[in-house]
Amino acid sequence: MTVTVVGIGLIGGSMAISLQESGFAKKVIGVDALRENEKKAIRRYLVDETMPLKEAVAQSDIIIVATPVDVMLKVIPEVLDLVTDKQTVLDVGSTKEHLLASLKNHPNRKRLVATHPMAGTEYSGPEAAIPNLFDGKYTVIVDQEDSAKDAVAIAEQLYKVMNMKIAYLDATAHDEHTAYVSHIAHISSFALALTVLEKEKNESRIFELASSGFGSTVRLAKSSPDMWIPIFRQNRDNVLSILDEYISTLSQFRTMLIKKDFENFHSKIEEANNIKKIIN
Amino acid sequence: MTVTVVGIGLIGGSMAISLQESGFAKKVIGVDALRENEKKAIRRYLVDETMPLKEAVAQSDIIIVATPVDVMLKVIPEVLDLVTDKQTVLDVGSTKEHLLASLKNHPNRKRLVATHPMAGTEYSGPEAAIPNLFDGKYTVIVDQEDSAKDAVAIAEQLYKVMNMKIAYLDATAHDEHTAYVSHIAHISSFALALTVLEKEKNESRIFELASSGFGSTVRLAKSSPDMWIPIFRQNRDNVLSILDEYISTLSQFRTMLIKKDFENFHSKIEEANNIKKIIN
Repeated sequence: MTVTVVGIGLIGGSMAISLQESGFAKKVIGVDALRENEKKAIRRYLVDETMPLKEAVAQSDIIIVATPVDVMLKVIPEVLDLVTDKQTVLDVGSTKEHLLASLKNHPNRKRLVATHPMAGTEYSGPEAAIPNLFDGKYTVIVDQEDSAKDAVAIAEQLYKVMNMKIAYLDATAHDEHTAYVSHIAHISSFALALTVLEKEKNESRIFELASSGFGSTVRLAKSSPDMWIPIFRQNRDNVLSILDEYISTLSQFRTMLIKKDFENFHSKIEEANNIKKIIN
Repeated sequence: MTVTVVGIGLIGGSMAISLQESGFAKKVIGVDALRENEKKAIRRYLVDETMPLKEAVAQSDIIIVATPVDVMLKVIPEVLDLVTDKQTVLDVGSTKEHLLASLKNHPNRKRLVATHPMAGTEYSGPEAAIPNLFDGKYTVIVDQEDSAKDAVAIAEQLYKVMNMKIAYLDATAHDEHTAYVSHIAHISSFALALTVLEKEKNESRIFELASSGFGSTVRLAKSSPDMWIPIFRQNRDNVLSILDEYISTLSQFRTMLIKKDFENFHSKIEEANNIKKIIN
């Protein structure tokens, strides 16, 4: 197979590595809006060559679109305009409702399989691409009934080669789920970083004492705004609704502290400990 | 040196390992309120033997108190009642103002060095004790002018043997700093876990999709309420004040989402990214 990756960052670059190393891709072509990223991708052997989008699509079996989700709104229709029934397009974006609604009437909609490999780090760009990023994780295939069966089969084959487990969701459920298990964690981390950085203006040595627990909790606050603002924009309603619940839980903690109601606070923490059963 | 560790959990047990492996302690005696913990500590070779507090203190050069901070209020005066000018007592608790105020008039106050090695994991108990937990981290010595010089010197020697860097703070500054770089991160994590667990009641498969980023952000939510409620109780005012700032930052995010003010939201995330300079 020849695979084009549009957007050679953390996700696109890491997929390029997996697909090459597994032998699934005989050739990987890179396309990026930034010439600098294309050069880095070549230098790091993430892709075999780079070229303009149109040429790349013309010689590819599979086109993976791995740009920020705002760029996808423009790039995916362009790619779909170019493909035939022999080609498959995958997007790997973190939000789906907005994108899929905008593509609803595209004549080649069936060639697109909307997917979301649930893996990442707080870093971005071609330099962030790493092997085995996806190993053993879940990927979601979204609204698969709107894609051609053969295209879905190719997507499934590709993710199995990447050693991923596959879940199937509709776009609404996908966006709600990811708001819970990913987007709100980023909001929480960005806010924590800001709160503590504000304090650091007066207490320059405060971070010397930061323990690894603090580091783990604010890790996601290093994430790129260029990636995350488009996600928050497209998934605004779900994120808002969970943010309300999160603020409400924190406000309950606040009330318990004010009232010195440590008995109920203890019960709440015991309840939170149930996360043990879920996260290793 | 003979060292007694009172409270053989994550911190006490890990210190026992470091002090034995470095040869600093010729013998480590364990004292724990739970017989079961004493047995585990023996079985895991954390301590050489266990015995009642009074006997243990009688034969020790150094007594490290590593219980939850509420228990310290009772145990430390008991230990200080027993020691002579040849012995040194260290506490390793996460809060200081409350404890040190309560000990102000103890005749042996000078034998106590109030310290706080800034390291930990989300686990607790003797089974959580690990080698190298403290390696390269900071420890704080608090209100050192209230301790005898020779006692401070012994504490410094002990932490250097554990390969820790030493910072000196007064009790007020210590409690404020730790609220920022540790306590609020736990609050944030407990609340995030509760918010998502609430959702899971209706969406049982939601956690399949949780990425490693989510795992990192809720990791601290596994922490024991028996350790953390006493900390929140003793450091209530500082925690409340930072919790207010944290909720206020989240509320700003909420307002920006409601107003679709993504430009300012982008700037805020860029600002949060400055955490990169501080946390690796």
